[in-house]
Amino acid sequence: MGDNTFGTKFKITSFGESHGKVVGIVIDGTPAGLEFDLAYIQNELDKRKPGQSNFTTSRKEQDKVKVLSGIFNNKTTGAPICLIIENQDVDSSNYKKTKDLLRPSHVDYVILQKFGGFADYRGSGRFSGRITAGFVMAGAVAKQILDKNNISTFAYTRGIGNVEDNKDYSMEDLEPIKQKREMSPVRAVDLELSEKMEKAIEIAKKANDSLGGTIRCIIKNVPPGIGGPLFNNLESNLSKGIFSIPAIKGIEFGAGFKASKMMGSEHNDPWAIKEGKIISTKNDSGGIIGGISTGMPIIFTVAVKPTPSIGIIQKTVNIKRMIEEEIKIEGRHDPCIVPRAVVVIESIAAIVILDYLLIEGKISSVLED
Amino acid sequence: MGDNTFGTKFKITSFGESHGKVVGIVIDGTPAGLEFDLAYIQNELDKRKPGQSNFTTSRKEQDKVKVLSGIFNNKTTGAPICLIIENQDVDSSNYKKTKDLLRPSHVDYVILQKFGGFADYRGSGRFSGRITAGFVMAGAVAKQILDKNNISTFAYTRGIGNVEDNKDYSMEDLEPIKQKREMSPVRAVDLELSEKMEKAIEIAKKANDSLGGTIRCIIKNVPPGIGGPLFNNLESNLSKGIFSIPAIKGIEFGAGFKASKMMGSEHNDPWAIKEGKIISTKNDSGGIIGGISTGMPIIFTVAVKPTPSIGIIQKTVNIKRMIEEEIKIEGRHDPCIVPRAVVVIESIAAIVILDYLLIEGKISSVLED
Amino acid sequence: MGDNTFGTKFKITSFGESHGKVVGIVIDGTPAGLEFDLAYIQNELDKRKPGQSNFTTSRKEQDKVKVLSGIFNNKTTGAPICLIIENQDVDSSNYKKTKDLLRPSHVDYVILQKFGGFADYRGSGRFSGRITAGFVMAGAVAKQILDKNNISTFAYTRGIGNVEDNKDYSMEDLEPIKQKREMSPVRAVDLELSEKMEKAIEIAKKANDSLGGTIRCIIKNVPPGIGGPLFNNLESNLSKGIFSIPAIKGIEFGAGFKASKMMGSEHNDPWAIKEGKIISTKNDSGGIIGGISTGMPIIFTVAVKPTPSIGIIQKTVNIKRMIEEEIKIEGRHDPCIVPRAVVVIESIAAIVILDYLLIEGKISSVLED
Amino acid sequence: MGDNTFGTKFKITSFGESHGKVVGIVIDGTPAGLEFDLAYIQNELDKRKPGQSNFTTSRKEQDKVKVLSGIFNNKTTGAPICLIIENQDVDSSNYKKTKDLLRPSHVDYVILQKFGGFADYRGSGRFSGRITAGFVMAGAVAKQILDKNNISTFAYTRGIGNVEDNKDYSMEDLEPIKQKREMSPVRAVDLELSEKMEKAIEIAKKANDSLGGTIRCIIKNVPPGIGGPLFNNLESNLSKGIFSIPAIKGIEFGAGFKASKMMGSEHNDPWAIKEGKIISTKNDSGGIIGGISTGMPIIFTVAVKPTPSIGIIQKTVNIKRMIEEEIKIEGRHDPCIVPRAVVVIESIAAIVILDYLLIEGKISSVLED
Repeated sequence: MGDNTFGTKFKITSFGESHGKVVGIVIDGTPAGLEFDLAYIQNELDKRKPGQSNFTTSRKEQDKVKVLSGIFNNKTTGAPICLIIENQDVDSSNYKKTKDLLRPSHVDYVILQKFGGFADYRGSGRFSGRITAGFVMAGAVAKQILDKNNISTFAYTRGIGNVEDNKDYSMEDLEPIKQKREMSPVRAVDLELSEKMEKAIEIAKKANDSLGGTIRCIIKNVPPGIGGPLFNNLESNLSKGIFSIPAIKGIEFGAGFKASKMMGSEHNDPWAIKEGKIISTKNDSGGIIGGISTGMPIIFTVAVKPTPSIGIIQKTVNIKRMIEEEIKIEGRHDPCIVPRAVVVIESIAAIVILDYLLIEGKISSVLED
Repeated sequence: MGDNTFGTKFKITSFGESHGKVVGIVIDGTPAGLEFDLAYIQNELDKRKPGQSNFTTSRKEQDKVKVLSGIFNNKTTGAPICLIIENQDVDSSNYKKTKDLLRPSHVDYVILQKFGGFADYRGSGRFSGRITAGFVMAGAVAKQILDKNNISTFAYTRGIGNVEDNKDYSMEDLEPIKQKREMSPVRAVDLELSEKMEKAIEIAKKANDSLGGTIRCIIKNVPPGIGGPLFNNLESNLSKGIFSIPAIKGIEFGAGFKASKMMGSEHNDPWAIKEGKIISTKNDSGGIIGGISTGMPIIFTVAVKPTPSIGIIQKTVNIKRMIEEEIKIEGRHDPCIVPRAVVVIESIAAIVILDYLLIEGKISSVLED
Repeated sequence: MGDNTFGTKFKITSFGESHGKVVGIVIDGTPAGLEFDLAYIQNELDKRKPGQSNFTTSRKEQDKVKVLSGIFNNKTTGAPICLIIENQDVDSSNYKKTKDLLRPSHVDYVILQKFGGFADYRGSGRFSGRITAGFVMAGAVAKQILDKNNISTFAYTRGIGNVEDNKDYSMEDLEPIKQKREMSPVRAVDLELSEKMEKAIEIAKKANDSLGGTIRCIIKNVPPGIGGPLFNNLESNLSKGIFSIPAIKGIEFGAGFKASKMMGSEHNDPWAIKEGKIISTKNDSGGIIGGISTGMPIIFTVAVKPTPSIGIIQKTVNIKRMIEEEIKIEGRHDPCIVPRAVVVIESIAAIVILDYLLIEGKISSVLED
Repeated sequence: MGDNTFGTKFKITSFGESHGKVVGIVIDGTPAGLEFDLAYIQNELDKRKPGQSNFTTSRKEQDKVKVLSGIFNNKTTGAPICLIIENQDVDSSNYKKTKDLLRPSHVDYVILQKFGGFADYRGSGRFSGRITAGFVMAGAVAKQILDKNNISTFAYTRGIGNVEDNKDYSMEDLEPIKQKREMSPVRAVDLELSEKMEKAIEIAKKANDSLGGTIRCIIKNVPPGIGGPLFNNLESNLSKGIFSIPAIKGIEFGAGFKASKMMGSEHNDPWAIKEGKIISTKNDSGGIIGGISTGMPIIFTVAVKPTPSIGIIQKTVNIKRMIEEEIKIEGRHDPCIVPRAVVVIESIAAIVILDYLLIEGKISSVLED
């Protein structure tokens, strides 16, 4: 209740349900004067939409973005921008069948506890990954403004199940890596590992099972000095945003959990001078020290749990009859949500960083050429 | 700037500096009528205070809590409670010596970027771990209210460097474990592993180096239905709070990063009925699904980086002369901050959970017997 | 920028423009389980819609409410409710004509200053009174919940120009007065004064001029103890909401400005006992003391300025040529906005009061029969 | 509960009680690098402190400001500044005497309703006007920053009881008026009217009665374009702040309630050009149109109710015995709070305006010479 709004100066408000009429987002705080590139937004949405490959749900949705407000003469006006996509391929039949059986590790039980049985359970309603389409639309607006400020967010699949890409790309030129990601159906950037990941998903899918994974995000060119100690901490606010994405169970910055096993002499990033600017020669801090950007790439990695909807018989409870029963979940589901979540992670990162830049006065409230 | 306040109905505002007059906290939103137990607060503070063992800084501070407001007839009044501790053993001499040398992975550079050279750099000022004494005082107030509602937060050292306690205590009775923690100078709960951890710190200390670690927190008896999807997500708000503690670089809920390598059939927690109540037979979800509490113990683990202040020569930059130099940090520092951070983690957990309970109307604004 | 969201637990986010596609509102925090009465909402909207009488603009709009999200099985689900009305009778021709002339006391100049010429100026865009249709839709949802809690908001036209209704209705049974309001085209409750007010508007209209007025709002049955001192003050938050309505230039609670001329002995409201309950025998405090509800009716009065759009030649500046010129505003405008603003005032009052009740735990997050 | 914090980037948190140890304020968001002028703050406090004349309470307080945090090398650091004054002349004897009698129009009853009898009732605790000393300290910090940006806030007593100063000073040079105010014990700017006001208070005081009044505030040189429609409205946020001051019962901007009786042709402020800049030739809008600053002086007027504490016998209720009784209030009280409230109004105005300027990026987060 009461918490579908996020951000301070760049503020998004989410609405809509998986099997309702629409999924939408109100984007408040976009500076006036930004050339509005609808094709860019659509292109971002397409990276998340279902039916892209046989690793994703068979639900068919166009996910065509529509503008309800905030654009005039093809430019942003400073007014709230409302964007929606419509739900078309809605099949709620399977949800009715198992309505009283609590799907394990799924939201049925908690929804019941919180909303007393009144929530729209179809397609998981507000808890569906489909809601993140709103994040992607808002992220696409944010990215366009960051672009103009030479700041980029880039995420990729780092691991699927046990296949993991341990390389550190953050200090490299990302352009060639971005191109590789476009060639990988799982959004990995090492094409050999990509194939292994694809295979792992296929195996899981055949077994009616599912897989989790990890996603890494790299944000380049955030100026040093953004953020703060305590509650204005960059890590605090990035993590708050990231955990609002369904299925995320962990986040680490820079060396993260690995840092916990290091000695200080190993973990510390030495300062140096390069072309007259202060840099660190490595980046185990992930671009953030004391909650504040160092100017180095911001790096974080998230853990995505395996989709709980699996076609294998599981033990559970019939909530109506209050007895233990078994459940076999039908319906259309992704065997692995990771590839589609990549663009969502990027979007939240862009939203959070843009909000910081607007709050700290690094980007004007009017964009002029 | 502008962000030393956290929470919605239970709201804390931090002030003070490491080497200034005081470290303080304003606690706003405490229900009226709570018996105010100053000894309890002092006891909590003592768990964090320096000089407890030879694993901690040699700075000597009493850290004696003083009440400036909000208490009347030894009870809370519903008014903001202001608590302070005074700084007594302040030795800023070493900070002046190396003032122009940027300590690697330390806050000198980012402070300069953000505050333009005006920040109080002594003892890291606002960025010092000492600021978390305020969190502990607020947490101690929160814990007392949670206690009355039968909710407890318990954290312990799970790893120091490469020594790790992989057991899962969350489903057990915590009482015997709590007693063991009190016997461990590093706040571990397995006393054999505790000795190994102590040894690891001793080695690091002798080498003028430092160590990181991990802390696990278990919150018991949070009722199901607390939290929400998106930005009201329990994981979002717990992580936002936790990252406001200095040196935290990662957080995971339940199986966390391990979940990313699991299959759905392995990760899913089966629902069952026990004594008429719905439970899950295991808890890889960490007590949170869809951002909402399931009623099972909430479990999260955090990664603490090694203290950046080490007595080993490191490469860095002299910011004034803009040349590369070497630095050897003097001053009094903890070789491993983990044991003292345990109570801070618990405190933030208590603050966040109490705020949720107050917002969702599970705890009255007036406590009456 | 960034501030089209209002409220804490009952939170509204406004979007849309006067001459864009839609005017909409996202209502977040509605408890689950409320029977959704669309006809009620439509009925409220009809009280605000243009073309009700010849005192209002000749713009013709159906203002038919459409539901985009948040309703399932005809009940609220706890998810954000998105409601829109479409703009149909859009005639922006007159706005182009005088685009470079700053309308006196109108928003042209400030919009230009704030949004750098990119704002949607047609029909005043975001600054149009039409945006308040969103407040009315949200207010209609709030009123239905307040109704169930026996709390009512009632506003009426207290003055138009120099015609003023000085009677105090707050202590009376409001039912007969409500019926009279429905018979008054200007939403007054004294039908003789209503006629005088109508006449005053007619005169202004014939002169191509406009009129302001005052509106009084009475909120009954708010339980005592809601609100707080300082920033949780009921007067603070009601006034913050009320001033978000265009054309409001003043607000006073209870005796208000008249109180400033009274002696304490005259102004003080004596406490008494009536049917076992504590009441005050008069209510110059307007139901609020120390920012907290007393249980007596909450009473406030607002000042509405005359519509700045008048058909009389006025002196102004041509912003493009930076010379002084004259302007004669064409287009369709209300000679007096007061009658249509009455329901808007009620709506904001309902939104604010419901938010308080939800925050203070007086209304559950799930409504059950 | 939970709402003693105000502001977004310039954020104040109030604590302390009238008869507790201290009254304090945490000021968060002050840019780093501001020369900290303690004497300036003390001078502002002195304007509010009791015992200045025989029109004020006989309570004797030094109100000497002490700095607990946030200042280093006599400059602001960007860290939260905690300022306190101590309570010294505390005499709570009279409060005990009438503890069970509800003072008419006073906070006893609502405090009981809200805090269940646990609140610190002595000297009205958190509801005391003494709490506004915190606003004055924060306002004094804000004023110093506004000064550097050539923005000034100036308030004066416009009316006491029936004596009213109807002149409009806003378009004049305020310097000579400021000097006059310093000569007036009631903080009026027309010294003849000042004498009449003094007389009115004397008469009320002799009668053991009290008086209210009005205060006008003029804010000069706010740049055009600050604020916004809806909830970012300057009038919304100024009024929210102002009503947090005890005893305020009304606020109006520009012509305010008078505007409600005007025709549009009379109320509209014509635009003109003066020295190459756009101005309005009069200012009935009070410097705010559509919630946004026009660049003209911002003008608002507030209504202050008469002090409810009077020494005349009043009817009331004994809450313990639940019978009607009579009360005669003893203790030390101001017969008219208006003169001391003038500086409080100015302070809130400064706090709100500075917050806007920081949010909108008009003032840097680091002040450098």
